[in-house]
Amino acid sequence: MPKLIDHDARRDLIVDVTWQLILRGGIEHATMREIAREAGFANGALKHYFASKDAIVEQAFHRAMSMIEAMAEYAKDLRGVAGLRALSAAALPLDEERVTAGRVLMAFWELALANEGLREEYVRHLSSWRSTILDHLEEGREDGEVVTATPDDEIVDELILLTAGANVMTLVGREYTTIEIVDRHLDRFLGRLARP
Amino acid sequence: MPKLIDHDARRDLIVDVTWQLILRGGIEHATMREIAREAGFANGALKHYFASKDAIVEQAFHRAMSMIEAMAEYAKDLRGVAGLRALSAAALPLDEERVTAGRVLMAFWELALANEGLREEYVRHLSSWRSTILDHLEEGREDGEVVTATPDDEIVDELILLTAGANVMTLVGREYTTIEIVDRHLDRFLGRLARP
Repeated sequence: MPKLIDHDARRDLIVDVTWQLILRGGIEHATMREIAREAGFANGALKHYFASKDAIVEQAFHRAMSMIEAMAEYAKDLRGVAGLRALSAAALPLDEERVTAGRVLMAFWELALANEGLREEYVRHLSSWRSTILDHLEEGREDGEVVTATPDDEIVDELILLTAGANVMTLVGREYTTIEIVDRHLDRFLGRLARP
Repeated sequence: MPKLIDHDARRDLIVDVTWQLILRGGIEHATMREIAREAGFANGALKHYFASKDAIVEQAFHRAMSMIEAMAEYAKDLRGVAGLRALSAAALPLDEERVTAGRVLMAFWELALANEGLREEYVRHLSSWRSTILDHLEEGREDGEVVTATPDDEIVDELILLTAGANVMTLVGREYTTIEIVDRHLDRFLGRLARP
């Protein structure tokens, strides 16, 4: 009987190992050689599953995004500002798991700036995220919760900058930007929506 | 007569080349081998000037910070919110040169997360930047320009997240986060300080 190989499990294992290598030593530490070694693969065998390191990191990025989307899932049943809060909280580094996802996101950004295909992938994700935020803002305007004079597309951009900045600073400037402070930034951001 | 070698000029050249390699292909593209090749050095000769790639990127980070500090120089003669505006504008990606400095900063962050010495270096810079912002806020409070109920240290943190987020998003999400929009974010941020 031929040996059964679970190829999906192997791909998952490769992504696991890469995720851990990024957390430990950043994008430079996650070389194809190192990934293969940690996963217990022969060097060439990795190529059977992923064409390149960029393809593996892309998969790690998808996993980070899936974590965020799973957390944001219940935002779908919430309208306006409540929905916006749930959605934003999912993407903000408000616990260690999300700080970790932010680390992988930073590594992905670094690669995406050298690989236009990866960057386009990110922009597609960003675009869908932005339109979901916009939907919640429109609901908020309908319900009279959102009354600020700031145009909706600039509110979206502000929230995106807050989220990106928080993901970076809870890592590189963690002495100052703590999870508690990020939580208060979100509160104040949402509070401003209710002011004319 | 022995050949005169301008060692400072050579160190500058190495940093120039590394800066350009980061802009072209990110931190992974800037290997010791590639830096030596582009600078016209023998592979081993680079080590005479810098012990490691991290040391070179640290120097590129210092250059980016010097650009920002030179731009922020005239903030020193300005009080309160005017000083804060000049200081913030220097660190925000408000023209192509500053977008470029942001790219080098992102590469430095990536390395700093794998090299605690580099991260401490960044935190020292951050700490001095934060205290200058705080000084301007205190002047603004004295002069009655800053009346918001938000505590000063959280205002500082908000500005840092805005700045970090803008540096990232004008690069990875440039379809949305344009220089003009970043300029409006700064305006609104400063405008909020004047509201109770």
